[in-house]
Amino acid sequence: MSSRTAADTRDRIVMAAKAEFAQYGIAGARVDRIAKEARTSKERVYAYFRSKEDLYAFVARQELAVVAAASRMDPTDLPGYAGRIFDFFLSHPEHHRLVAWGRLELGDNAPAPDDPLMAAVREKTEQLRKAQEDGYLDPSWDPFDVLPLVHQIATSWAAQPELAHVAKEQARTPDAAARRAAIVRAVQLVFPATTRDETASR
Amino acid sequence: MSSRTAADTRDRIVMAAKAEFAQYGIAGARVDRIAKEARTSKERVYAYFRSKEDLYAFVARQELAVVAAASRMDPTDLPGYAGRIFDFFLSHPEHHRLVAWGRLELGDNAPAPDDPLMAAVREKTEQLRKAQEDGYLDPSWDPFDVLPLVHQIATSWAAQPELAHVAKEQARTPDAAARRAAIVRAVQLVFPATTRDETASR
Repeated sequence: MSSRTAADTRDRIVMAAKAEFAQYGIAGARVDRIAKEARTSKERVYAYFRSKEDLYAFVARQELAVVAAASRMDPTDLPGYAGRIFDFFLSHPEHHRLVAWGRLELGDNAPAPDDPLMAAVREKTEQLRKAQEDGYLDPSWDPFDVLPLVHQIATSWAAQPELAHVAKEQARTPDAAARRAAIVRAVQLVFPATTRDETASR
Repeated sequence: MSSRTAADTRDRIVMAAKAEFAQYGIAGARVDRIAKEARTSKERVYAYFRSKEDLYAFVARQELAVVAAASRMDPTDLPGYAGRIFDFFLSHPEHHRLVAWGRLELGDNAPAPDDPLMAAVREKTEQLRKAQEDGYLDPSWDPFDVLPLVHQIATSWAAQPELAHVAKEQARTPDAAARRAAIVRAVQLVFPATTRDETASR
């Protein structure tokens, strides 16, 4: 097997695993279904990933990087960041399920010190702390509260998909653009954006 | 069996089921474990509840009523409401898991028109709409956005338990009272409380 073909196989496994985990969770996922969907064998899956749990950890890590790259946290414009998170989840509803399964199935034990999610949180919190020092963000907030609040507001609809059905029937304006605007407005009220240029030139 | 004993058995089944579902989800829950924990038989469990899914639906409905009673939504004081939701989840972390499993396992199909969660959302949204008419809440919000936003902010820590571990290590003030204050402050910035008395007397 050429290394190109091997890389393709691995990519197909990861893609199939992502869909399988999002749908069924970790315990409910079946490696033979993943193998079949990826047009390979169960044995090949285990050649790349030692266990189903390892495969989940890989997929979850990769997804974390994807959402971080798509949403680009900017401490001077948290409403804009929230809007990008909203957009990401609107077009990738399976991402939220993938993460939610892990939270439930892996429990809330303290993550390992080298856990990539924790490293990402630490790095972003540090950026927020720096933004407070530089006058871009109200320093009276504990910087540690900022990220969880912004993430929660931004995922209001992704996290409560059952409410989207009621929205169709009840909301004054039922489209996604209206939900997005409400999210951006809420974050703007809590953590107003500071235009870097404005601050720099005044 | 006296009716008193029967009611006790049923209560024990429901209590055991709540813990079992919170821990393992619907697919992962075992009726024989629930029966054993409730000091009864699997057959008795099925005499009260036709299926594991029916038992989950019953428990979830009951929990919804419990959280609603404990948090008492007040359209004129949404920050206070958010604080009570925070308190409830702090002392009942299993409640969040119970609901989260259902979201994942039952999928996001449109809920039935008589779904009790949807009925509760409809009723609260109507209260919010009324509060807007009466001048207690900014009418420029789509009333349908208010509840999901308040709920999301209030459950920032319940929904992201993994972050609580980082808080211990990183937050300026790591205790729960600081997290609660940040949540109440965020809701106050988005949906400020209006004191009924003040408005009435002026």
